[in-house]
Amino acid sequence: MTDPMSDTVRAKSVEELAALIGARALGDTQIGIESVASVGSATLGTVAFVEDLKALENAQDCGASALIVPDGAGERARKIAQKVPAIIEVAIPKLAFALFAKILHPQKQREPSIHSTAAIAESADIALTAYIGPHVSIGENSTIGTGTRIEAGVVVGDDVTIGIDCVLHPNVTLYDGVTIGDRVVLHAAVCIGADGFGYVRDDVAYHKFPQVGTVIIEDDVEIGAHTCVDRGSLGRTRIGRGTKLDNQIHVGHNCDIGERVVIAAQTGISGSVTIEDDCVIGGQVGFGDHIRVQSGAVIGSKAGVLPGKIVRPGVWWGIPIQPRDEYKRLNAHVGRLPQMREELKELRTRVKELEEKLLPNSADD
Amino acid sequence: MTDPMSDTVRAKSVEELAALIGARALGDTQIGIESVASVGSATLGTVAFVEDLKALENAQDCGASALIVPDGAGERARKIAQKVPAIIEVAIPKLAFALFAKILHPQKQREPSIHSTAAIAESADIALTAYIGPHVSIGENSTIGTGTRIEAGVVVGDDVTIGIDCVLHPNVTLYDGVTIGDRVVLHAAVCIGADGFGYVRDDVAYHKFPQVGTVIIEDDVEIGAHTCVDRGSLGRTRIGRGTKLDNQIHVGHNCDIGERVVIAAQTGISGSVTIEDDCVIGGQVGFGDHIRVQSGAVIGSKAGVLPGKIVRPGVWWGIPIQPRDEYKRLNAHVGRLPQMREELKELRTRVKELEEKLLPNSADD
Amino acid sequence: MTDPMSDTVRAKSVEELAALIGARALGDTQIGIESVASVGSATLGTVAFVEDLKALENAQDCGASALIVPDGAGERARKIAQKVPAIIEVAIPKLAFALFAKILHPQKQREPSIHSTAAIAESADIALTAYIGPHVSIGENSTIGTGTRIEAGVVVGDDVTIGIDCVLHPNVTLYDGVTIGDRVVLHAAVCIGADGFGYVRDDVAYHKFPQVGTVIIEDDVEIGAHTCVDRGSLGRTRIGRGTKLDNQIHVGHNCDIGERVVIAAQTGISGSVTIEDDCVIGGQVGFGDHIRVQSGAVIGSKAGVLPGKIVRPGVWWGIPIQPRDEYKRLNAHVGRLPQMREELKELRTRVKELEEKLLPNSADD
Repeated sequence: MTDPMSDTVRAKSVEELAALIGARALGDTQIGIESVASVGSATLGTVAFVEDLKALENAQDCGASALIVPDGAGERARKIAQKVPAIIEVAIPKLAFALFAKILHPQKQREPSIHSTAAIAESADIALTAYIGPHVSIGENSTIGTGTRIEAGVVVGDDVTIGIDCVLHPNVTLYDGVTIGDRVVLHAAVCIGADGFGYVRDDVAYHKFPQVGTVIIEDDVEIGAHTCVDRGSLGRTRIGRGTKLDNQIHVGHNCDIGERVVIAAQTGISGSVTIEDDCVIGGQVGFGDHIRVQSGAVIGSKAGVLPGKIVRPGVWWGIPIQPRDEYKRLNAHVGRLPQMREELKELRTRVKELEEKLLPNSADD
Repeated sequence: MTDPMSDTVRAKSVEELAALIGARALGDTQIGIESVASVGSATLGTVAFVEDLKALENAQDCGASALIVPDGAGERARKIAQKVPAIIEVAIPKLAFALFAKILHPQKQREPSIHSTAAIAESADIALTAYIGPHVSIGENSTIGTGTRIEAGVVVGDDVTIGIDCVLHPNVTLYDGVTIGDRVVLHAAVCIGADGFGYVRDDVAYHKFPQVGTVIIEDDVEIGAHTCVDRGSLGRTRIGRGTKLDNQIHVGHNCDIGERVVIAAQTGISGSVTIEDDCVIGGQVGFGDHIRVQSGAVIGSKAGVLPGKIVRPGVWWGIPIQPRDEYKRLNAHVGRLPQMREELKELRTRVKELEEKLLPNSADD
Repeated sequence: MTDPMSDTVRAKSVEELAALIGARALGDTQIGIESVASVGSATLGTVAFVEDLKALENAQDCGASALIVPDGAGERARKIAQKVPAIIEVAIPKLAFALFAKILHPQKQREPSIHSTAAIAESADIALTAYIGPHVSIGENSTIGTGTRIEAGVVVGDDVTIGIDCVLHPNVTLYDGVTIGDRVVLHAAVCIGADGFGYVRDDVAYHKFPQVGTVIIEDDVEIGAHTCVDRGSLGRTRIGRGTKLDNQIHVGHNCDIGERVVIAAQTGISGSVTIEDDCVIGGQVGFGDHIRVQSGAVIGSKAGVLPGKIVRPGVWWGIPIQPRDEYKRLNAHVGRLPQMREELKELRTRVKELEEKLLPNSADD
């Protein structure tokens, strides 16, 4: 079975691969590697990895041509994974595996071209090396950088700037005036720059609060399918450099998401929330507005953060969020409530008995 | 008012309909039926149903031409629903009603054709009886089965296989290499095969973990609008035969969802989760990664399942999940906390009184 | 930096603006205003606002040409915001600001036209003043009202009615037979009229319950990006006049959402839920089916409402929902559980001591 995602790539030898990342190779280092695979399903021509010695113990039957193992585990690996002709030793096997995958399964390449069905405004500026797919629309004064690939059905509004080497997957929508950096990947149906949710109520109706700001997506951001990032109401909404968003996330108007932030699927972020650099946010988390999450905070899946909160570094769980250990402790206490109730009942009986025997005149209760 | 969803269908007599499902018909069995309706809004020419005797008691004013009732309730129905000329008796009235609806409101038919605006790769293989709508894109080496209907704006990548008699509603996106079985229905903007969410962090950035697997959607699956099923990172993500997913669900990379599983809207499933056959999952449920839900388990809406859990058959509620009865019991205990606190306080007073009166020297507290 | 969202508009004087809403203007009322801005980022040519006197105290450095303040605060504002040449006094500054924004940043206008790439059924009826963008599809017998703007990639099914002055942003999908009122705004990828989620199970499979109803979106509704409103299974699903839905909301079949209801992002509403006029619903709320939320109820974010509930006016939080004060009180009790446990333990010791000293023969426990 061929890998439908990868263009054909000449096999690389284990020696070549190891050299590219400065790793040590043992065994038959001339053997050719064509693709990556998991330990369990690896076959001839593939490279697999184990993260640690424990995982290595389960690699006896691995059928890969090469196995990446932690530094110092090479000899042990040769003993356990006897069918594997070559071993690669490296500090972080999973990282090496990811880098090999980039080489062996390069991103899809498209010949620079503009599909005949694309509708492109005359004032738009498309780099010569860009790819513009079928049924793409590009509005007035928008610019598309070199090497950028825009797949079928994408709609780019007016005055949009897209940097170099980006990939916009099918049916993405970019509203007017948003800015996309370099090497940004937007998966299918991502929506950048829709109006934020703000209204002013009078006696008879809701009036729209202005949503005239914009959105800036910085370099090396990847955004999962169907995620929506709303435009600023007056200022801008920002997704910082190197940040990764999963599918179906909602980012409200005027949020400022820092660099190298990771957010899992279906999390919802109300307006004017700041998440500083290097935070990790689980899935289905809910943020009220005007929250600041400080750099290094980790928020568990399904947590809820009340409006206006400052979330300090540490690990947070629950609705509303508490330090994880506190959350677990309280949860355990709740689990013991039936027993506590029994204890309380028993104690009442004993106290009543004491009272009846020793204070015969105070027959209350 | 005509029904906008249904193509014109010659009316069927009650006798014909009953014969098709082996049901018993009473009364004026020659009366014609053109469409289905609810008991409350039914008019001449429609068939309605009641699930049980209790519902039957509320059908006095029903204006339908025929009413489907449980086996044995026919005579009772004739007495209560006196305006209804015909009664159909059957074991499961709701099922009969669904089957009649299939006959009376057949799926929209399209003449086999390829719209002039569709962009189809030369190497794609489109069945002669398929319908390809406006602004559809189909990539290299993809195949579309007989009778399959692909509505406007759908984007099908390269190396995609789509079976027979499928319906892809507008703006669906299929990434490269995914496989869709027979009679699969994908509602608007469904996304199959986007990259899973996996990165390896080093000192300076997140590096993408390979997402080079694929997705298999088996026969008779129906997937609600805006649901996203990510591709496997190395292996595949699978949605089993006859499974039904509601709107806006997220299915992470390498999940294995069994046959006849039902999942309600907005549920999020992290990577490598297995849900075995015949499970029922509520809406807004969250699954951590590497969970196994055993066949026959039922998980209530808004529940949260911790990573790595094995969920046994039974009914589960809460965050984290507990057996439903346990959940309800603990919830009741929490509701009694104020009272418990009062009891505890009162008990302290009484113990103190005992101590003061009987242990005059131990004046602690 | 120019505002990418706004067409060029002739500056208006403070006097003109104030006159339009019957407000009082102080200071240099002839100064020109071109756009709205926040107090913090306002520059020459902009108008900003403060909601109350407390916010006014932080406006010392405001660089706007005009500042909107509450009635009676004009003189105080002139003292504090000394750089601002003009002050506008009005009852609700935020509302005045919203109205000014409508004037200064008018909605994007498109010349009436039908893009050459649009695919429009011959029987469709498009108003002469409508705008139909690139790659739009419009089905048989659908009608598009005057002044309505349909952006690129939108798919309109058969027998759809769209009123006047609507805006359909890119990649919206309208299924067959739905009705959209006047001045409705649908943001990117909104899906109206997909099948509701209903099946009848027999021994071997799930059979689709008929989804042959429709959807009615009334006048002045705005719906956020990626929100899905399913069609009625037999009757209709309705979104009432003036209601505002945020992004990524799910509205199930046969829901009846009243007028001037506001619902925040990612809320999920099961089938046959009624939400009466003027309710306010937070984000990520989950509704079971057949719930009735009475007019004036407010439900906090992340709440869960059990099937069949009647939710009375008032403020509700939690899973399942409780009155907010009750929720907070119980939550506080849970937080005190460790202390309560300690108290209980201590009390046991003291009771045991009493028993041992005073009832020497009853050495139980």
